[in-house]
Amino acid sequence: MTPLPAPTDLTLEEKVSLTSGAGFWRTEAIERVGIPSIVLTDGPHGVRKQRAGADGIGDSEPATCFPPAVALGCSWDPALVARVGAAIGAEAAAQDVAVLLGPGINIKRTPLCGRTFEYFSEDPVVSGVLGAAMVSGIQSRGVGASLKHFAANNQETDRMRVSADIDARPLREIYLRAFAHVVREAQPWTVMCSYNRINGVYTARDPWLLTTVLREEWGFDGVVVSDWGAADDRPASLVAGLDLAMPGPTRAGDAAILAAVEAGTLAAQRVDEAAGRVLRLIERAGGRGADPVDQDAHHALAREAAGRSIVLLRNDGDLLPLRPDTSIAVIGAFAVEPRYQGGGSSKINPTRLDTALDEIRALATGTVTYHPGDPLDDAVAAASAADVAVVFLGLPAAAESEGYDRDGIDLPAAQLALLDAVRLANPRTVVVLSNGGVVALPFAEDVPALLEGWLLGQACGGAVADVLFGVVNPSAKLTETIPRRLQDTPAYLDFPGEHGHVRYGEGLFVGYRWYDARDLDVAFPFGHGLSYTTFHYGDASAAVDDAGGIAVEVSVTNTGAVAGREVVQVYTGVRDSAVTRAPRECKAFVSVPLEPGETREIRLTVRREDLAYWDIRVDGWVVEAGTYTIEVAASSRDVRASLSVDVAGDDIGLPLTRMSSIGEVLAHPVAGPALAEAMASAMPDAGSTAGMMPEGVDVARMLDGIPIQRAIVFAAAGGADVDPAMIDALLEAADRPAD
Amino acid sequence: MTPLPAPTDLTLEEKVSLTSGAGFWRTEAIERVGIPSIVLTDGPHGVRKQRAGADGIGDSEPATCFPPAVALGCSWDPALVARVGAAIGAEAAAQDVAVLLGPGINIKRTPLCGRTFEYFSEDPVVSGVLGAAMVSGIQSRGVGASLKHFAANNQETDRMRVSADIDARPLREIYLRAFAHVVREAQPWTVMCSYNRINGVYTARDPWLLTTVLREEWGFDGVVVSDWGAADDRPASLVAGLDLAMPGPTRAGDAAILAAVEAGTLAAQRVDEAAGRVLRLIERAGGRGADPVDQDAHHALAREAAGRSIVLLRNDGDLLPLRPDTSIAVIGAFAVEPRYQGGGSSKINPTRLDTALDEIRALATGTVTYHPGDPLDDAVAAASAADVAVVFLGLPAAAESEGYDRDGIDLPAAQLALLDAVRLANPRTVVVLSNGGVVALPFAEDVPALLEGWLLGQACGGAVADVLFGVVNPSAKLTETIPRRLQDTPAYLDFPGEHGHVRYGEGLFVGYRWYDARDLDVAFPFGHGLSYTTFHYGDASAAVDDAGGIAVEVSVTNTGAVAGREVVQVYTGVRDSAVTRAPRECKAFVSVPLEPGETREIRLTVRREDLAYWDIRVDGWVVEAGTYTIEVAASSRDVRASLSVDVAGDDIGLPLTRMSSIGEVLAHPVAGPALAEAMASAMPDAGSTAGMMPEGVDVARMLDGIPIQRAIVFAAAGGADVDPAMIDALLEAADRPAD
Repeated sequence: MTPLPAPTDLTLEEKVSLTSGAGFWRTEAIERVGIPSIVLTDGPHGVRKQRAGADGIGDSEPATCFPPAVALGCSWDPALVARVGAAIGAEAAAQDVAVLLGPGINIKRTPLCGRTFEYFSEDPVVSGVLGAAMVSGIQSRGVGASLKHFAANNQETDRMRVSADIDARPLREIYLRAFAHVVREAQPWTVMCSYNRINGVYTARDPWLLTTVLREEWGFDGVVVSDWGAADDRPASLVAGLDLAMPGPTRAGDAAILAAVEAGTLAAQRVDEAAGRVLRLIERAGGRGADPVDQDAHHALAREAAGRSIVLLRNDGDLLPLRPDTSIAVIGAFAVEPRYQGGGSSKINPTRLDTALDEIRALATGTVTYHPGDPLDDAVAAASAADVAVVFLGLPAAAESEGYDRDGIDLPAAQLALLDAVRLANPRTVVVLSNGGVVALPFAEDVPALLEGWLLGQACGGAVADVLFGVVNPSAKLTETIPRRLQDTPAYLDFPGEHGHVRYGEGLFVGYRWYDARDLDVAFPFGHGLSYTTFHYGDASAAVDDAGGIAVEVSVTNTGAVAGREVVQVYTGVRDSAVTRAPRECKAFVSVPLEPGETREIRLTVRREDLAYWDIRVDGWVVEAGTYTIEVAASSRDVRASLSVDVAGDDIGLPLTRMSSIGEVLAHPVAGPALAEAMASAMPDAGSTAGMMPEGVDVARMLDGIPIQRAIVFAAAGGADVDPAMIDALLEAADRPAD
Repeated sequence: MTPLPAPTDLTLEEKVSLTSGAGFWRTEAIERVGIPSIVLTDGPHGVRKQRAGADGIGDSEPATCFPPAVALGCSWDPALVARVGAAIGAEAAAQDVAVLLGPGINIKRTPLCGRTFEYFSEDPVVSGVLGAAMVSGIQSRGVGASLKHFAANNQETDRMRVSADIDARPLREIYLRAFAHVVREAQPWTVMCSYNRINGVYTARDPWLLTTVLREEWGFDGVVVSDWGAADDRPASLVAGLDLAMPGPTRAGDAAILAAVEAGTLAAQRVDEAAGRVLRLIERAGGRGADPVDQDAHHALAREAAGRSIVLLRNDGDLLPLRPDTSIAVIGAFAVEPRYQGGGSSKINPTRLDTALDEIRALATGTVTYHPGDPLDDAVAAASAADVAVVFLGLPAAAESEGYDRDGIDLPAAQLALLDAVRLANPRTVVVLSNGGVVALPFAEDVPALLEGWLLGQACGGAVADVLFGVVNPSAKLTETIPRRLQDTPAYLDFPGEHGHVRYGEGLFVGYRWYDARDLDVAFPFGHGLSYTTFHYGDASAAVDDAGGIAVEVSVTNTGAVAGREVVQVYTGVRDSAVTRAPRECKAFVSVPLEPGETREIRLTVRREDLAYWDIRVDGWVVEAGTYTIEVAASSRDVRASLSVDVAGDDIGLPLTRMSSIGEVLAHPVAGPALAEAMASAMPDAGSTAGMMPEGVDVARMLDGIPIQRAIVFAAAGGADVDPAMIDALLEAADRPAD
């Protein structure tokens, strides 16, 4: 293609026009100089391209509906996620789409988030690794990804105004960590800012977030695009680092920018920069192909991915897999009217749609009956007459969607009543769940087999049938905790906030970090998932690697009779940490395919940067020196090997000051002995605290927390002869580098 | 006495000298004009006046050691608290003390706070009512109280630097509410600022806290004194509203103030104001008497108060009270070496000290043996040989003190082992606890009788004996929850903070508010306490009173055989509240004495101001309109009558803006219908959303949260003809008062 003009070839008005859209889904073209318009469309688990002439988000071109992130993430397999991403990229290219608006990698802070089905995990490393794989996959087809929603858009309630009030450590360690990972590892062409505010500032006009953090710290070099409608104040957004306001046009916004440049409150260079980035995006997008899509192959991939996404939560007495000749009562309307994706902008118009009932019938050789569950008596009779009842339960579509949150996590009462009736009629009952957000499972101990199908995309039915009959051996594991009760969830008491603010009061303790730290029982823990085979974890070792991270090795053997995959997880902790820490944090994982009897030596890497915590004293990442526990685990509560490694810390060299505490000064190698000596000579009864302190208190602990400054005041008031200048000299000398 | 000179009679240097102390415990005198020095000494549960010539806080004049607040508060009886306050005031006056540094009314945010024994409750209304009673009592003797530690000094760890990071609602509704109550109801002569920071600002130099809130909102007209050493920056503290920096002198501080006045950065008027307030305090203090103290009477009051403070947690099978002729094995060293107060500045040198063993022997007519518990076999043998074993357990003195916090809530393992051995040897085992902060009670179900004695002051022994033998019928109830596990406590994951900050992540949900909201089991709930008699709650009613609060009436009958007192509690809640609320909040209480068979009609008042929540939109208190639940209860989990009252709300008249959501505008009586009409005409397919939104979503909920501003952008991008000026006109018209 012909190179596009540089910003210098354009008028200011033309450049400004490039910084907002032309209607809902396109950038502005500038015909005078041959700049084309490019198309951005919704994702993330398929291409949702608005049909020409359609309004709103209800009418789009057919595309393969792959499993939404809630499901696909449970594969814990970046390679699979990248293949799905590549397929989506190919479909986008075929539809003349330049940028696909995904993946979404917001953290699942609460199961009540109405849009949680679009996100991968409650864990930032899992979200980051899978998000990077999705970006790489999409962009491998010459189509840009849009990493979203940046950032801390963890709820739908009042999402367009609410301020997520988050302390620095959870903001950095939980909510921004995945974004940093994806930006650094996969270089998305665009990042989409969110609607909400963070600590009072709209992300769409936050120079700290969009420039300092995103570009300067992480090296992002693409286009920052607004979530649709988020850029109310175009000049402020431009100043902050937002390049492309969507949708458009907003004539008033263009005029405001021109006026600001005229008035000198907005540097023209910033307009050049933004327009230049949009031009570069248009240029990049010109490189994509437009090969026709093999819809059968994509549907097969959707089925494979869905099969890899179904989590076998429970399989008592190996009820699953079913033999083909088993007589089966299929019960529940979801078996014929599947719930396979969520509501809102991500809702794909699928190229086809499998139902579980059809696919079960296709694989079964025995009798298969179907009952929607109403009337109850018929379902009970059918269950009684069959070898096995397979009950499809789930949330109705309107229960979860972009745009609003859920009020609770209970399944509809009628469904629970149906299940109770069926399982009493036939204890050999398998439950298959369809839900985008976690649901309470009060029946978990009462049914022998339980499949968490989440929302599986258009090939849902085939994938469920594959797993039921063992055509696919389930290998997915939970990327979020299933709690026992809504009341146990970390954000229960400060969600969704009020009056424009939501306090993230649980801090660092999101998801399993909370349940572990508070020692709470859960229904199914983070990382849990069963298989039709068994895996043995053999010898494990861990050592610091050349990059200062930790190399973990473990041998894993498939000790069962069928091929399978095991998701091996590595969690770290720090013994006696000086800072607040979760008991364990997932820092590495791998999905390993193993033939029966096969053993593999697995190597996982915990990156040094993932060991770091955010230190508010230095406003930076710090790896703490100390003994780290390394848990090699089949789930967050199924640790197979526990190791420890001594890690060298980062030196942050904090200076002593008059507000340093006695404890801090005494701990200092130079100032400590000097202060001890000064204290001894200042106290009349040297070496003793008799008379100064009452009996029965731990004097050392009491003194420990007193700032030197205060000690001077106390000593002076008590008549002691303390020269503050001497203390200052001491503190200063302590921080001088040795000669 | 002769009137003191006015500030205008003093030089600037003299006035400045009045704003800090002369040594640890005195204000500066100005002999030239006859201004005397006055003495301030530690409290709060007795007078701790440093002996002349003594350094530090280890050597003080004898005084009656009354029960610390942790115990006394459990009386829930302002009249009793006021009598104790008056006795302390009388002792202060007799010792020439002008100001007693107490009461402490900080909220028990966590049981780990090392100084929690100095505070009343986890509830702000209970703390406020009892704190006001203590202030009134002390000041009734012409001695000033010092309400402390203002504010949010809820931990000892790093207390001199840490910033308590608290959102506006919990700060106002939980942490400042009790202070507001005491200032308004009891007018303390002084308020002591704390060491810590709140939201980053040292309280000692926070004009918002010390002036805007304390003086302008609450009408405080006394002296703000610093906690000892808290005023590092004297000019900044003076500007903020701190009048008296203690201890002193700080020559550098005086010089800094003079220099600031000279430089014009500190108004001389502020020095006049502070010096004037100190002068007024000195003047007020001149009015006190100095009658000699009747130490026997005060000891008797200490015993009475202690008896009213002991909480009978459990009394299975009415094991208590003991008959005098019961043979008793007294076990545990606390029976002879009582733990009766906490460590640090509040530690009183008692005028005498009862032991439980002596006092039990004084009341018993049967055999009483004593074993410290070591060796175990002897204690077991003694327990086996006796009718009843009374085991004294508790925390060692060094476990809890001012200046540092606890690491856990477990009793020492050796004590638990002793108890296990004894109760197996004799199931008729009574446990008496001595502890300043809550301890875990894993044995609570295993012993028939359990007395929570807290720290009971110098008459502890007699009071315990009184309760054991039924000379006193226990009537105390818990002012804090006893949790099952430390991991269940609200602040468990963000205490004590790090790097100078502690986030109050639990927000409003402190104490029972947390356990109720999260539906957690507790060992013993807030408000719980048993009696040797029983009480029946009869008819109850509730109605809005003339002041807009709620008048609650209930009849209570002593249905047992002995006289007793019942602490009747009133909790409120709001059905379908639009703001975050605890399920129930204690808003009124009364301790009622009842003879056997006696019935009383009790009237309690819930003040309207205590119904208000802090609204961050208007930065003010707001009573929400709605149906309030009124629970008349024997404890927070023993509700005897549940009523409801419709309360008229405060009108806060928030204007509509372009950032108002569609839901907010549609709910507006004027703008709502107009917007509905505009929406209908703007949409091509009026009255329907077909085509605009995909099926299966709750369109109304989705639209509800979209700001009008965004809707305009969306509509314009979609090609709809929306005139923003029309919207502005609509919003403006909606807020114009009707003609």
